[in-house]
Amino acid sequence: MAASAPSSSGGEPDPNSTNLRPPGSSYDAWCGVAHGCTRKLGMKICGFLQKNNNLEERSRIVSSLKERTAKTLLSCDNIGGDVRFRRTETDFSNLFARDLLPAKNGEEPTMQFLLEVVEILTNYIRKTFDRSTKVLDFHHPHQLLEGMEGFNLELSDQPESLEQILVDCRDSLKYGVRTGHPRFFNQLSTGLDIVGLAGEWLTSTANTNMFTYEIAPVFVLMEQLTLKKMREIIGWPDGEGDGIFSPGGAISNMYSVMIARYKFFPEVKTKGMAAAPRLILFTSELSHYSIKKASAALGFGTENLILLNTDERGRVIPADLEAKVIEAKQKGYVPIYVNATAGTTVYGAFDPINEIADICEKYGMWLHVDGAWGGGLLMSRKHRHKLNGVERANSVTWNPHKMMGVPLQCSAILVRERGILQGCNSMCAGYLFQPDKQYDVTYDTGDKAIQCGRHVDIFKFWLMWKAKGTVGFEQHIDKCLDLSAYLYNKIKHREGFEMVFNGEPQHTNVCFWYIPPSLRGICSAFSAKQSITVGANACFLMRLHDTVQCFPQQVAPKIKAMMMESGTTMVGYQPQGDKVNFFRMVISNAAATRSDIDFLIEEIERLGHDL
Amino acid sequence: MAASAPSSSGGEPDPNSTNLRPPGSSYDAWCGVAHGCTRKLGMKICGFLQKNNNLEERSRIVSSLKERTAKTLLSCDNIGGDVRFRRTETDFSNLFARDLLPAKNGEEPTMQFLLEVVEILTNYIRKTFDRSTKVLDFHHPHQLLEGMEGFNLELSDQPESLEQILVDCRDSLKYGVRTGHPRFFNQLSTGLDIVGLAGEWLTSTANTNMFTYEIAPVFVLMEQLTLKKMREIIGWPDGEGDGIFSPGGAISNMYSVMIARYKFFPEVKTKGMAAAPRLILFTSELSHYSIKKASAALGFGTENLILLNTDERGRVIPADLEAKVIEAKQKGYVPIYVNATAGTTVYGAFDPINEIADICEKYGMWLHVDGAWGGGLLMSRKHRHKLNGVERANSVTWNPHKMMGVPLQCSAILVRERGILQGCNSMCAGYLFQPDKQYDVTYDTGDKAIQCGRHVDIFKFWLMWKAKGTVGFEQHIDKCLDLSAYLYNKIKHREGFEMVFNGEPQHTNVCFWYIPPSLRGICSAFSAKQSITVGANACFLMRLHDTVQCFPQQVAPKIKAMMMESGTTMVGYQPQGDKVNFFRMVISNAAATRSDIDFLIEEIERLGHDL
Repeated sequence: MAASAPSSSGGEPDPNSTNLRPPGSSYDAWCGVAHGCTRKLGMKICGFLQKNNNLEERSRIVSSLKERTAKTLLSCDNIGGDVRFRRTETDFSNLFARDLLPAKNGEEPTMQFLLEVVEILTNYIRKTFDRSTKVLDFHHPHQLLEGMEGFNLELSDQPESLEQILVDCRDSLKYGVRTGHPRFFNQLSTGLDIVGLAGEWLTSTANTNMFTYEIAPVFVLMEQLTLKKMREIIGWPDGEGDGIFSPGGAISNMYSVMIARYKFFPEVKTKGMAAAPRLILFTSELSHYSIKKASAALGFGTENLILLNTDERGRVIPADLEAKVIEAKQKGYVPIYVNATAGTTVYGAFDPINEIADICEKYGMWLHVDGAWGGGLLMSRKHRHKLNGVERANSVTWNPHKMMGVPLQCSAILVRERGILQGCNSMCAGYLFQPDKQYDVTYDTGDKAIQCGRHVDIFKFWLMWKAKGTVGFEQHIDKCLDLSAYLYNKIKHREGFEMVFNGEPQHTNVCFWYIPPSLRGICSAFSAKQSITVGANACFLMRLHDTVQCFPQQVAPKIKAMMMESGTTMVGYQPQGDKVNFFRMVISNAAATRSDIDFLIEEIERLGHDL
Repeated sequence: MAASAPSSSGGEPDPNSTNLRPPGSSYDAWCGVAHGCTRKLGMKICGFLQKNNNLEERSRIVSSLKERTAKTLLSCDNIGGDVRFRRTETDFSNLFARDLLPAKNGEEPTMQFLLEVVEILTNYIRKTFDRSTKVLDFHHPHQLLEGMEGFNLELSDQPESLEQILVDCRDSLKYGVRTGHPRFFNQLSTGLDIVGLAGEWLTSTANTNMFTYEIAPVFVLMEQLTLKKMREIIGWPDGEGDGIFSPGGAISNMYSVMIARYKFFPEVKTKGMAAAPRLILFTSELSHYSIKKASAALGFGTENLILLNTDERGRVIPADLEAKVIEAKQKGYVPIYVNATAGTTVYGAFDPINEIADICEKYGMWLHVDGAWGGGLLMSRKHRHKLNGVERANSVTWNPHKMMGVPLQCSAILVRERGILQGCNSMCAGYLFQPDKQYDVTYDTGDKAIQCGRHVDIFKFWLMWKAKGTVGFEQHIDKCLDLSAYLYNKIKHREGFEMVFNGEPQHTNVCFWYIPPSLRGICSAFSAKQSITVGANACFLMRLHDTVQCFPQQVAPKIKAMMMESGTTMVGYQPQGDKVNFFRMVISNAAATRSDIDFLIEEIERLGHDL
């Protein structure tokens, strides 16, 4: 390895001339360890070792240390615990970003600052899993914008001290939402996987970019191996095919539409949509809105995305697809793409892939399976049958950051045919993808992407897979589905609850209305198809909304608002089609247990009782 | 706050029934502190306090502790330092992911595991800034795939122990590339900002999603305030307008094309490109390839993206733009969009925005400024004049993750006209963007995006801005530009170096050829326009490549290959147009100094001397 070159400029000291390592004495050595890795206690012990040679003095100090620490612990219990590990030895109020590495002598403040941050984070992690803490401490936008006790969001010209930065870190977490809390059920992505988190911390520290093997050798290989494994699980022979991690399911779905178009009309890449006839895409009326966004963005137009009717459980009716394909062809349009959803966003429905695949084969259309939410079920021997036929798909979206608990962002687009992703997106930028590198440049995968720079999303997922094994993901998924069955069985006949559809859910989505006691008589006929004018029993609603009509859709928003104000739990709601606002429970959080499901139901009853 | 509900299921113990806190005795309290926050030393001290009441015994143990730690330090110095803080008290070989939170009693192993990871990371950070370490330890793909001393990339069905996971973390860093190393100059994104890193660690821990205020209240507000600040800096009155953070410059540029199209032909959203005439886009022949990718993806076709000629410094020639606009119009096409690059990828050239803006206004075209690389110069009073006219742009791409040193990914698309981003992309998904929430739902910004889930890219940037102030970014940028001027002046007349173009660089890009001594006579006429057949002096190349032709473009790849094998530094090279492979130095790394520039030049000379 080459040594540091002498500075020939003369204008600047060599930053390495002050070498902090190796330590020069055993005291220094000892303090190097203590400072570097266990700063807080280390500092105390260093002081102890450096200043004291007398045995009795030593023991006095250890006793005092023990006493002071116990006292600190007690005093901080009083104020919420956030500062109980506060280190008085480092005065961050006189330290600034400019004092950190690469500043000269910046190593010590850097380590102290990072360890202080880690203390804030580990404290947060502990609380996240602690059911006696809130899921959130809700404030309205104007409250946060006005500034909360020293938490000021405004940016200024001059630097803040690192002490203020640490306060900002604490406050940003304090006023945020604990998405890993066992009672956070608000989104498809929940939970806080510790190994995944460690993976993200490492990814941030490596701070590299996926476009070439040159600067991300390990991560590029991990991506290839993991994508192959996913393709094997899908059922493509020998895991052959292609794929890439993208910044989310919407982008993955967009890729699928792009490559389908490229497959049938490659000339669109150079000549634009004008080179193709009127192309038609199909998707469920209940599919994710990203398909619609893709049809708008890519120049198809949302009118050329035909929505398919669904059955009572939210699954595409294959006959409707075939009828609409025939209709489009009769008009002279060209159907090219069908999206089958494996796990719809609201109902968790799985479209019948095999029957859809038959129609795609018959009419020569690209079959995409949007398994952003349901793809994880492929890891479960018990539940993967819900995606039967997925191996017949031409492309699959699968978001490990949803059902598999991987931290955001982690979404894959998988493609059965090798080369088409490259063909569709390649622009051969010379400054990145030089053919004359010394290594096998087929590992430079960046030209397959619509992105240039691409965040490393693979490492956390790879690390979790290593740590859990395939069986670990399977157990997680089976457990979440068991929990949703528990919830379904608990409320299907419970007074005041009404299911949005009958039958056990296919995924962890459980959709239901809660009817407050005051509305039960009036709304007993209510299966959400009409609005009903009511009398005295709706007075509360009337007073609230200055109307004499009973709109049960106001129940869920009202309960949700109270839920957020009290911060005890979070669950989503929405209308869908002709169905007014209902709750949608989803379970993907590894921390959730039956007691949390019980809690949620009782909390809805508590909050909604007097509506 | 509601208490934990009693478990009514009976099948599962309440996970909170075993409460680890608060500690029951002062020894426990002490160890709680020690374990939680300073694990390694804490464990030692706990053992000490719990087992010993005798003063002499206490002091003996402290001495022994000191001795053992010093010994550990020494022993680990022998094997490279990676394991010198290895904690023998925790046997990670018997711990698995399933033992971590949310497992019962999972808090202690979780904290130990995370602190062990932090130790690996802080160790890596120290080395990153240490010039006596390599930038990379290069291995070919097949070598890493075959497995390196216990580092096996394959995924398996069964879980690995946490000990193996920690080894995997170390190895992933070991075989990666230190993009924060002071001598890493390979990409536009370099450096490792400590405050930014802390921000990323916090972001990962919060693990939330930008689509609604509901689950990202603080981050959503930070994004709004930061975007406003950026618009103010661009020069739009009162910082009015809109914007969003996207997963990178390519996606930001794609947004710009989408909204330009929506501005002039909103019906394309519903009816597709068939509803519009033939639309023409313009960009520099030297602009980033993402404009071309966008024209392909969005259905324009790459042939409808007209490339503009550039002057000797790589800047668009405005007269060429106007001529091509007129030509397109004469053909009956409709020019709608011009991209002016502020800081091209290879040359770092700034297109003349004001002159381009004049033409855009004259012909009614959308002006986008791709400042992915050069946008950061807006922070510098000294250099922002290079973007004069940017305030006349309709949209601007600006990647803080490049010149401003923010960790990847952090890219903004800024739009002058409010509402158009929403109009272009909104699909009003009911399950996310309910109008009947209790807070001001204009803060739910997700429907503006082409993504659904969106990673939190704002926090690290906001935190860095707080910590540095606007002046801190300015100093960073001025320093990097000073360094590039230093490099330019150092090599412009140095023997063996030839500049790709004359004159001081506009950005930090310095482009040059290195001509080895053996080729200097032969290639002295070489300004890269022709290939030259040579004799004996090219023997080395001949033997390597089995040819008697002298291709100077092989010099840069060969030096780069040796550079990577030796791991001392990294710089990019590429051909461009008729110019054969040349080196492109870029400086965005806050850790780089003049001595590192000197090192790079001497290293190129050392490696290339005998070619």
